[in-house]
Amino acid sequence: MAVTASDGITHDELRLAARNHAMPLEALSWPVTPVGLHYLLIHYDVPVVDPAEWRLVVGGAVNRPLELDPDQIRARPSIDLTTTMECAGNGRALLEPRPLSQPWLTEAVGTATWTGVPLADLLEEAGLTTGVTDVVLTGADHGVEGGVAQAYERSLDLATAMTAGAVLAYAMNGSALPPQHGYPLRAVVPGWYGMANVKWLARITVTEERFSGYQMDVAYRFRQTEGEPGRPVTLMLPRSLMVPPGVPDFYTRRRVVGMGRIRLTGRAWSGRGPIVGVEVSDDGGSTWMETVLVSDVPSLWAWTGWWCEWEPPGPGEHVLCCRATDVTGESQPMEPVWNLGGYENNAVQRVLVTVV
Amino acid sequence: MAVTASDGITHDELRLAARNHAMPLEALSWPVTPVGLHYLLIHYDVPVVDPAEWRLVVGGAVNRPLELDPDQIRARPSIDLTTTMECAGNGRALLEPRPLSQPWLTEAVGTATWTGVPLADLLEEAGLTTGVTDVVLTGADHGVEGGVAQAYERSLDLATAMTAGAVLAYAMNGSALPPQHGYPLRAVVPGWYGMANVKWLARITVTEERFSGYQMDVAYRFRQTEGEPGRPVTLMLPRSLMVPPGVPDFYTRRRVVGMGRIRLTGRAWSGRGPIVGVEVSDDGGSTWMETVLVSDVPSLWAWTGWWCEWEPPGPGEHVLCCRATDVTGESQPMEPVWNLGGYENNAVQRVLVTVV
Repeated sequence: MAVTASDGITHDELRLAARNHAMPLEALSWPVTPVGLHYLLIHYDVPVVDPAEWRLVVGGAVNRPLELDPDQIRARPSIDLTTTMECAGNGRALLEPRPLSQPWLTEAVGTATWTGVPLADLLEEAGLTTGVTDVVLTGADHGVEGGVAQAYERSLDLATAMTAGAVLAYAMNGSALPPQHGYPLRAVVPGWYGMANVKWLARITVTEERFSGYQMDVAYRFRQTEGEPGRPVTLMLPRSLMVPPGVPDFYTRRRVVGMGRIRLTGRAWSGRGPIVGVEVSDDGGSTWMETVLVSDVPSLWAWTGWWCEWEPPGPGEHVLCCRATDVTGESQPMEPVWNLGGYENNAVQRVLVTVV
Repeated sequence: MAVTASDGITHDELRLAARNHAMPLEALSWPVTPVGLHYLLIHYDVPVVDPAEWRLVVGGAVNRPLELDPDQIRARPSIDLTTTMECAGNGRALLEPRPLSQPWLTEAVGTATWTGVPLADLLEEAGLTTGVTDVVLTGADHGVEGGVAQAYERSLDLATAMTAGAVLAYAMNGSALPPQHGYPLRAVVPGWYGMANVKWLARITVTEERFSGYQMDVAYRFRQTEGEPGRPVTLMLPRSLMVPPGVPDFYTRRRVVGMGRIRLTGRAWSGRGPIVGVEVSDDGGSTWMETVLVSDVPSLWAWTGWWCEWEPPGPGEHVLCCRATDVTGESQPMEPVWNLGGYENNAVQRVLVTVV
């Protein structure tokens, strides 16, 4: 199987794109993304889980193994956590050559309010042994990936599991978790790319040695060649997106905007710290203007709104860009940093606009 | 702009596929599709509608024009209607050459329970004049299509508007209509392909002459060449789909199935009458076996379940197919009937299975 391609999107990529969907960019208008508009990546199939049969098993290097049914989980103290979640492969289809996997453009993102039990509370209840290194989260979904039959499985190192604010969520935006978002229980790890947020959680296994599953050591690593180990993909890089102004052409999605001052709006986020600035360019990135930031989602882990006034300089073709900077000083590059898996492409969004 | 292509999927098609999503085939397991799994086609942008500002205007050739706010619509007698809805372009990307538009494979479908006011009741309340021919439904969404700036707009002939059982829906599966499904009000026209089910309904205009809008006379017509008028696309043709058995390979979605008897399940529907039979083939369509039909959705307008036992004949590659027949005797063809817009491709689904 080819690993990358430079020509048209393959039938295999289309099959993935038909089932895994991004967030239509106009949905940036909502502070919390309505269910059904939040991006979705499902590695295998959505499992049909019978809540009467389902149990969360917490085992491994713990003093008091747990086996909890949905009611027992719901009976524990819960918190609400609003997070912006982005797929690590967002932007993959804009790389050249293009890594062959889910062909995301720029909008594999969404923000939701999750309700559930803090992971750290459950681990404390189970009682960790000394010498614990990793907490392995195993989903109920199965498939074959890279030739390896597997359940979707990711680990968190002990410090992340205990202090990152991870939640085991059973509700999304105030309603029961939908099947496609992990019913009856999923992990939500604030600040991390989507792959850490394991859905259809079936088992939590505490280990005393480093976990080396497929999704840790083969997939979700940033590297240039097949041979090298690379580094793991972890926290989301800063990114901003704009609600494309005007109206779209149906087939090309190119925007048609009239003359006269309009307001450009969008959102920006980073898993590495708060957003401190978003700039906009209307000449493809030669000149930039600052925007006004709006904190309309009361969560450290959710995106920040932004807006600016824009006066089209004249009729014709324009390329609008936006660029976010987070508190660590990290900003978005104009061009992607290529890598074999197509991860972490946070290059600035380009919106083609025809002013008429 | 090219109208068709035979090579890889274009970037424009991918951009549409990223925002408009099909129903993952395993969601056939649910009698009523959970919100977020139902297929979605949005011609332009999802409008952000302020319910305090929004009104439904009923005008044109009526004796008593109406202007109703959301509460006034909700105060009227309502009904629940469970319908299976399929995009008229479902199967388009399997045509050769491929019409350039939303590149659906086989699964642009979903079933929902809609709650709302019968369209006929509202038209009777408004009082139709004599000589009425059409009822035009206008959405709040705007864009450019085929070079024509437009609001999405479709008409129903008078008989269909009054007797087909169409509903103006404000709820889906018991909750408020999500933005992407037409909040605050949409049309649901049982049996018709999706294009008739106008979302974000803003205006109903009764006319005394035939309506000739873009979505009636240019798009959604079955024809072989650009010049001919063709015939309108109307009621859904029979189609069956199967839950792909076994587990998927991540990238190819090819199924891996073990030896031994398993149950194949799926659903079938037609807008032209009840499904009377579904057959399954495991040799690419040379031989067929009957399946057992299951009516687990109590609605004339919803899909029918089906199942059969299957014993893989041996390890290796197999092609599973399913084929539905409706009460009119119409069945699914083995090969698509090509047309310029890529509509009504109800050719049998083929599921590639590797038995191990």
